[in-house]
Amino acid sequence: MIEQLYSKSFASDNHAGAHPAVIEAVTAANTGDAPAYGDDAWTGALAEQVRAEFGDHATSLVVLNGTGANMLSLSMMLGRRYEAIICPETAHIATHETGASERVLGVKLVTVPTRDGKLTPADITARLGGRGNISEVQPRVVSISQVTELGTCYTADEVAAIARTAHDNGLLLHMDGARLANAAAHLGCSLRELTTEAGVDVLSFGASKNGAAVGEAVIVLRPDLAEAGPYLRRQTLQLASKMRFVSAQVSVLLTGELWRRNAEHANAMARRLAESVADVPGLSITWPVESNAVFASLPAEVIPELQARYLFHVWDASLGIVRWMTAFDTSPEDVDTFAADIRQALKAATS
Amino acid sequence: MIEQLYSKSFASDNHAGAHPAVIEAVTAANTGDAPAYGDDAWTGALAEQVRAEFGDHATSLVVLNGTGANMLSLSMMLGRRYEAIICPETAHIATHETGASERVLGVKLVTVPTRDGKLTPADITARLGGRGNISEVQPRVVSISQVTELGTCYTADEVAAIARTAHDNGLLLHMDGARLANAAAHLGCSLRELTTEAGVDVLSFGASKNGAAVGEAVIVLRPDLAEAGPYLRRQTLQLASKMRFVSAQVSVLLTGELWRRNAEHANAMARRLAESVADVPGLSITWPVESNAVFASLPAEVIPELQARYLFHVWDASLGIVRWMTAFDTSPEDVDTFAADIRQALKAATS
Amino acid sequence: MIEQLYSKSFASDNHAGAHPAVIEAVTAANTGDAPAYGDDAWTGALAEQVRAEFGDHATSLVVLNGTGANMLSLSMMLGRRYEAIICPETAHIATHETGASERVLGVKLVTVPTRDGKLTPADITARLGGRGNISEVQPRVVSISQVTELGTCYTADEVAAIARTAHDNGLLLHMDGARLANAAAHLGCSLRELTTEAGVDVLSFGASKNGAAVGEAVIVLRPDLAEAGPYLRRQTLQLASKMRFVSAQVSVLLTGELWRRNAEHANAMARRLAESVADVPGLSITWPVESNAVFASLPAEVIPELQARYLFHVWDASLGIVRWMTAFDTSPEDVDTFAADIRQALKAATS
Amino acid sequence: MIEQLYSKSFASDNHAGAHPAVIEAVTAANTGDAPAYGDDAWTGALAEQVRAEFGDHATSLVVLNGTGANMLSLSMMLGRRYEAIICPETAHIATHETGASERVLGVKLVTVPTRDGKLTPADITARLGGRGNISEVQPRVVSISQVTELGTCYTADEVAAIARTAHDNGLLLHMDGARLANAAAHLGCSLRELTTEAGVDVLSFGASKNGAAVGEAVIVLRPDLAEAGPYLRRQTLQLASKMRFVSAQVSVLLTGELWRRNAEHANAMARRLAESVADVPGLSITWPVESNAVFASLPAEVIPELQARYLFHVWDASLGIVRWMTAFDTSPEDVDTFAADIRQALKAATS
Repeated sequence: MIEQLYSKSFASDNHAGAHPAVIEAVTAANTGDAPAYGDDAWTGALAEQVRAEFGDHATSLVVLNGTGANMLSLSMMLGRRYEAIICPETAHIATHETGASERVLGVKLVTVPTRDGKLTPADITARLGGRGNISEVQPRVVSISQVTELGTCYTADEVAAIARTAHDNGLLLHMDGARLANAAAHLGCSLRELTTEAGVDVLSFGASKNGAAVGEAVIVLRPDLAEAGPYLRRQTLQLASKMRFVSAQVSVLLTGELWRRNAEHANAMARRLAESVADVPGLSITWPVESNAVFASLPAEVIPELQARYLFHVWDASLGIVRWMTAFDTSPEDVDTFAADIRQALKAATS
Repeated sequence: MIEQLYSKSFASDNHAGAHPAVIEAVTAANTGDAPAYGDDAWTGALAEQVRAEFGDHATSLVVLNGTGANMLSLSMMLGRRYEAIICPETAHIATHETGASERVLGVKLVTVPTRDGKLTPADITARLGGRGNISEVQPRVVSISQVTELGTCYTADEVAAIARTAHDNGLLLHMDGARLANAAAHLGCSLRELTTEAGVDVLSFGASKNGAAVGEAVIVLRPDLAEAGPYLRRQTLQLASKMRFVSAQVSVLLTGELWRRNAEHANAMARRLAESVADVPGLSITWPVESNAVFASLPAEVIPELQARYLFHVWDASLGIVRWMTAFDTSPEDVDTFAADIRQALKAATS
Repeated sequence: MIEQLYSKSFASDNHAGAHPAVIEAVTAANTGDAPAYGDDAWTGALAEQVRAEFGDHATSLVVLNGTGANMLSLSMMLGRRYEAIICPETAHIATHETGASERVLGVKLVTVPTRDGKLTPADITARLGGRGNISEVQPRVVSISQVTELGTCYTADEVAAIARTAHDNGLLLHMDGARLANAAAHLGCSLRELTTEAGVDVLSFGASKNGAAVGEAVIVLRPDLAEAGPYLRRQTLQLASKMRFVSAQVSVLLTGELWRRNAEHANAMARRLAESVADVPGLSITWPVESNAVFASLPAEVIPELQARYLFHVWDASLGIVRWMTAFDTSPEDVDTFAADIRQALKAATS
Repeated sequence: MIEQLYSKSFASDNHAGAHPAVIEAVTAANTGDAPAYGDDAWTGALAEQVRAEFGDHATSLVVLNGTGANMLSLSMMLGRRYEAIICPETAHIATHETGASERVLGVKLVTVPTRDGKLTPADITARLGGRGNISEVQPRVVSISQVTELGTCYTADEVAAIARTAHDNGLLLHMDGARLANAAAHLGCSLRELTTEAGVDVLSFGASKNGAAVGEAVIVLRPDLAEAGPYLRRQTLQLASKMRFVSAQVSVLLTGELWRRNAEHANAMARRLAESVADVPGLSITWPVESNAVFASLPAEVIPELQARYLFHVWDASLGIVRWMTAFDTSPEDVDTFAADIRQALKAATS
């Protein structure tokens, strides 16, 4: 067991606690009885907010974690047992969900190598050659992550182009929006512009990385897919009994665009970090910093030294790439101290 | 959407809010950074409490809801793809988890009719006739609910007899302990006496019905089954990223036996209700009141009238059986008012 | 390993060899090259025969065994992941397919106790109470076996009543017709009267018990279900590469009603056996003899003695019920010798 | 429907009929009653032959098709629900089984790009980086195809090196031996040298491409994996009731090394074809011809012209690669005529 951390973590936005407003919302929701399983006032209010944010046809399903949000979303989108999902090789569903797609959904992921974690329309059409061949799985869903696992963002136009290609070919578009807030903050646009208006069909909307304690939401933007949702949520182990305590968290993040302020701050801290170290000899920034993650390549010998004092992950040991993440509560001082120590460590190493 | 309730609900212990100590614990856990996915101090402290409560070999896996606890428990216990689970027909896993056992685990439930929701050793041995027949599923796990779905309890001796029969026949014993606290309170024994000492192998330990807001725990009492747990928890969509916020809730219930006080109170309120209405003409108590549930049969015409003023479920419409549940926060006044109204309604109906 | 049998087996119609015409058809199909996977002349001819027999809209999918036929049929009929199948407790899919329904399809079987292996319309409607309850599986398919596993038959009217009830409630009707030929022979009607005209949606059509060596067919009577069939056949491991060798077998059974002659003969032998022993003291026939199976209860001590000389199965050891099956090649002499020995054994036992 | 073919097919060894000895064996097996499901003399004799060929500890499970053989093999080798299989990107299990691995087994395939369809020890070790990471699947099985899907062969030493690497890392080795006979014929070694002695754990042994009509076998070379086989064969829809008719086919191929003669002939025909066209301008042989397949790249415009007269598959349309396959019954004249027409077509195209 590791104690509470000695310094600000740069390992994950999951290392941050909850935003104070989230805890206040949970506390406020603890007011006597309320119906279970979603028939409560807080879940109802959230549904209203989701419609305001994503459009009148949007329905929301509060869930318990990010993998649950993805599996529920995808289970709603898949029909035939021989369908497949096209996604980037780096997709969270392909790499970090312990095979839930294959085991829980029973679906093959057709993974696409990418340069920067982002799928293109051409990547999709190139995977449709087996259509009608009964020996091959039949793609039905395209899944993209916004922000990608490499910290990059799709513009609204890029999402729309993917959605068009998907729909033109009879496919549905899923967005793993575990950090959708960060993308909207980076791009300066609304959640709706990046999802409903761009043609996304079902969305995993991340709350915990944005400041919630426990919980996420699935948002269904194509009404004909919504009916099965409540059954599938129960079956995929994502139904909270005292749902108000989860709904209240997502709700407060959607109130007064708290999600945007949290994301903008985290993004700004990542940019501050990247800018602070960009000129350090021996260090190079791997992918554009378009969210709250900085990927950098460092001389291998420096990494353990820095890890002795700061929590962060090695992304690719063979290439010496590390990932530094910021959160809604990362302070400029946290960043500056870390950046100074990085600079110092590399100076020592390269001198 | 239903608003916050107009009177105390007798529909479910899930309608209650969280115990104030639970909310305080969540609030207290929100103190800066902590490692994600269980490497935090709160989860560590809980692990210590679980060992103290259930024995040195007990390991705990914090999860997100009750169905998740059951599916994770069972997935740890099943090996071969052709194994089966013996359980009562009334088991929650068989009736109210939308087929998660079959879909997520891919396992057949061999269900046993019972009089009172309780399995017996003879029920188990009677289902072993197909052993070695390659056309039949091979039972591997026995699953019992403590408290049962009918509100009845197994004594420690009854659990032990089932465990012995299971183990003697090469089976493992799972306990769905969504309301284990209520059983221990009713029987006046420790959690350990009803589980570890009785021979339970893996346990779903219910927290939310006892006063938590979100979260449950799986407790593994047979060390050789524990290794796979963390992988399976991730895969079965039960891994909380900011786990401290869940662990802190379970932890506070295990502190100073808060779980027992909550359960004792709920049980007492159920007994109070049953005793208050037992002599009402036209009403009969269906199963012994051994926890926080009262099952009663009523004249059919009374039910809608009562449901217009109180929230509760019809258990079996054809038999006119209803279920009334109490919670840690049900007050004697809540019970007395309800009992008086029941009495009044039946008096009007039978006069 | 057991050698070729010393006397005619009464254990199963699977103990018989293949009808000579089947072997001739296989031999005749071995004439140079032919496209694989069903694009061959023999499979085409069979498709034509199936349309002639079952109606213009019938499509056929040749498969490899009976469990495969059932799983493919059901996989074509199920859509949502939370659907369920209503079937008798005695159904082959529920008892003798090693949990393939749960593991391969991921579906819950809602099993119904019956007196004689036959489902009724009321059995179906009684299982629809959980409709719309998101915690319960949602029935989508009714599966009946014709002949049942207890040797009884549904009349065409009984099938039609079940189909009507199913369809009126938005359910589909599957028939496990492993011994459909025996039912049609017993009832003196056409295959079409018992299936297409009675409202069956998808049918497992048994060939091997009727005289084929290897192979069965799935027959789809509802065209909108057919499209997915070829993909699902490949995925459920039922696609024969050199399909002509299987198609030719099913085809020859459908030629000149060879299936009916084979079934009529087997049925007649079962009746002959039942009639020969019906008056033996201590023996009683358990279920009406409506196909090629005789179920009888005997004094327990007689069974091992008879099994020392004849192959047959004990159906229910606790009740002393045995099953005797006949085949297309059982001779009257086989039956008479066996009947005499049964009579002799019981005489010795009861004297 | 396509009629019987107008000329020898070069599309697949599945287009060939059955070897005459196979049909004779089926006919000979049709001699009265025999126990079903494998307790017959033919299956017993086959088991003996398999032990003689593969070693005393080898057990055999007759199955119905190649995908069935693979799924049964792999289901016997996998234990934990979060395990994965490492295989080449070109593996049949990854490309042409309609997602059976993911749907029927629920397993993720970790696919490896290769130059020639062959996995190397380094490919395996490079996929073990996620060991112990609970968010990642845990490789448990390595699956290689012998012959590969590109017509190339592993030498016995290459198989042994892969097996060593697998075993040293706690993995098991599966061989998809749909064309193992062709590999043994090409390499001039015994089946045992390429499997048992090289360290293969479970083997799909192909019969149909070698001259059988219907059927394959799974051969288990690691005794501790064998126990579950019969249950899993039933559950994965691969149990033949009248098994003698399948066993007899595999058996005759193993008698007097008929398998080798069939494979040697097919291989020789492929070499003859490759040698006949190797010097044709505009044509190049893509991968070494080490079995009964020839892959060649041709000018795109020639392909439809040749396909109008001969059946063969385009392997990769974008690269202009075609596949030509020979069978046990391809004659030198078939090859010479085809080669002359290829030469003629390319001459016309390039002049």
